[in-house]
Amino acid sequence: MIEVRAITFDTYGTLVDWRTSVLEELRAFGDARGVRLDWPAFLDEWKACYRSGMDAVNRGSRPWVTIDALYRERLAELLAARGLEVGDGELDHLNRVWRRLRPWPDVVAGLHRLRQRHVIAPLSNASFAGMVHLARFAGLPWDCVITAENARCYKPHPEVYRTALALLGLPPEQVLMAAAHNYDLAAAQALGMRTAFVPRPLEYGPGQTTDLVPTGKWDIVVDDVRELAAALGT
Amino acid sequence: MIEVRAITFDTYGTLVDWRTSVLEELRAFGDARGVRLDWPAFLDEWKACYRSGMDAVNRGSRPWVTIDALYRERLAELLAARGLEVGDGELDHLNRVWRRLRPWPDVVAGLHRLRQRHVIAPLSNASFAGMVHLARFAGLPWDCVITAENARCYKPHPEVYRTALALLGLPPEQVLMAAAHNYDLAAAQALGMRTAFVPRPLEYGPGQTTDLVPTGKWDIVVDDVRELAAALGT
Repeated sequence: MIEVRAITFDTYGTLVDWRTSVLEELRAFGDARGVRLDWPAFLDEWKACYRSGMDAVNRGSRPWVTIDALYRERLAELLAARGLEVGDGELDHLNRVWRRLRPWPDVVAGLHRLRQRHVIAPLSNASFAGMVHLARFAGLPWDCVITAENARCYKPHPEVYRTALALLGLPPEQVLMAAAHNYDLAAAQALGMRTAFVPRPLEYGPGQTTDLVPTGKWDIVVDDVRELAAALGT
Repeated sequence: MIEVRAITFDTYGTLVDWRTSVLEELRAFGDARGVRLDWPAFLDEWKACYRSGMDAVNRGSRPWVTIDALYRERLAELLAARGLEVGDGELDHLNRVWRRLRPWPDVVAGLHRLRQRHVIAPLSNASFAGMVHLARFAGLPWDCVITAENARCYKPHPEVYRTALALLGLPPEQVLMAAAHNYDLAAAQALGMRTAFVPRPLEYGPGQTTDLVPTGKWDIVVDDVRELAAALGT
C-alpha cells in the first residue's frame, strides 16, 4: 500500500462536473433572454481559451493572469460575436459560474474520509480566490488551498508542483497527486510525486475520447474518490 | 456595522494560547529526563528569537527562512547551553509543539459562526505547513491558509498583507484583519484594511504589560471571537 502524508487534487473535471453545471447556467441565461444557442458548442469554444491562455503565460509571452480573467475575456468575445450585449455586472456573475460547480457524487464523502489521516489540498489551475469560493459552494473540506496562482504559472509547469511541495513542507514521495488527466500525473511523477488516476469519462460529455484510460504507470488507478480512500486504507 | 467579505486572523496569541501549551510540553519533556529548569524563562528566551529572526529576513540580511527553522535553531542552542543533549528526532518533535497549541475557548465556535457569511483565513507568521497542521490540531475551520511564507517575508512587512489581499482577490476595505497585537493592526490599516482588536491579556502570562488596550483607532474592539461574530452580525 502507498504511504503518503498529503494528497493534492486536480479539481476541474477530477472533483467537479464543470460541464453539466456550466451548461445549466448558460441555458438559464439564454432562456432569461429568449435566446436559443447551441450552448454545448458555445461552452466548447469558451473552455478552449483555457489551455492557450495558460500556455502563453507558461511560455512567458503573456504576464501572469488568473484563469478567471482569461475566461472573462473569452466570454465577452463569444457573447459579442453572437450579438449579445451583456453588462459588466452580469458578465462577472456569469463568469463566476466556475465557482458554482457541483462535485461528482463520490467526492465530498471521499475527501472527508481521506482527510482523517492525510492533509488534503487542491492543486488546480484555478485562481486562489476561485478555488476558495468553489470549495465553499461544493463543500470540499480542504486543509488548505494551493493553486497555480501560488506559483504564478500553470500546470503542467513543474514550478506549480514544486510550489505545492514547498508549501506542504514535504518531499515529493510523500505527496500523492490525484487527477483525471494523464498529463497532470505525468508532470507530477516527473518530480517524484506519487500518482493516482481517477478517470472521469463523462467530464467532456458523452462523446469524450481523451483520458479514458491510464497512459502512464500511475501508482493507483481507481474509479472515484471513495475508492481512492479505500486504496489508501482510510 | 462594518461590512467585509473576508476576515484574516493573526493566530499565535490571537487564536491559540501558545504559552500554556508550550510550557506544558516543556515541563513534560523536563520531567521525562528528570531535569528541573525554569521553563517559563526558557520559553521567554526561546520565543525571543522570533522577532529578531523575522526582522533579519525583512531587512534582507538573511534569506527567507520559515519560523519553524528559526525556532529549531534557537531551541537547539538553548538546550545545548543547559547541557541537555537531544537527538534530531526528539528536537524535531519538541519544535513541532508550535503545531500543537490549544485554541482559546471562544475560538472554534466563533470561527464557525463567522464562516457562515465570510471567508476566513489565518494571516500568520507561521510556516504554511505549520499553520495547516495547527489548524488540524486545534480544529480551526479555515477556508484557506495564508501565511508569511506565501509572501516570503514577515508581518508587519506590507507585502504580507498585500499578498493576502491579492490571493483573496479583494480590495483592502473588504478585508478585516483581526489580531491581539496593535502593531499588526497598524500595518493592516496602513494598507486600507479594516481592523479588529481582540486583546488576549494572558497571552504572555499573568504579568503581561503589552497589548492590553487598543493603541490605534481600530474599527472593532471586542473581547473574543464570539463577540467578533456578533459585531459582524453573524
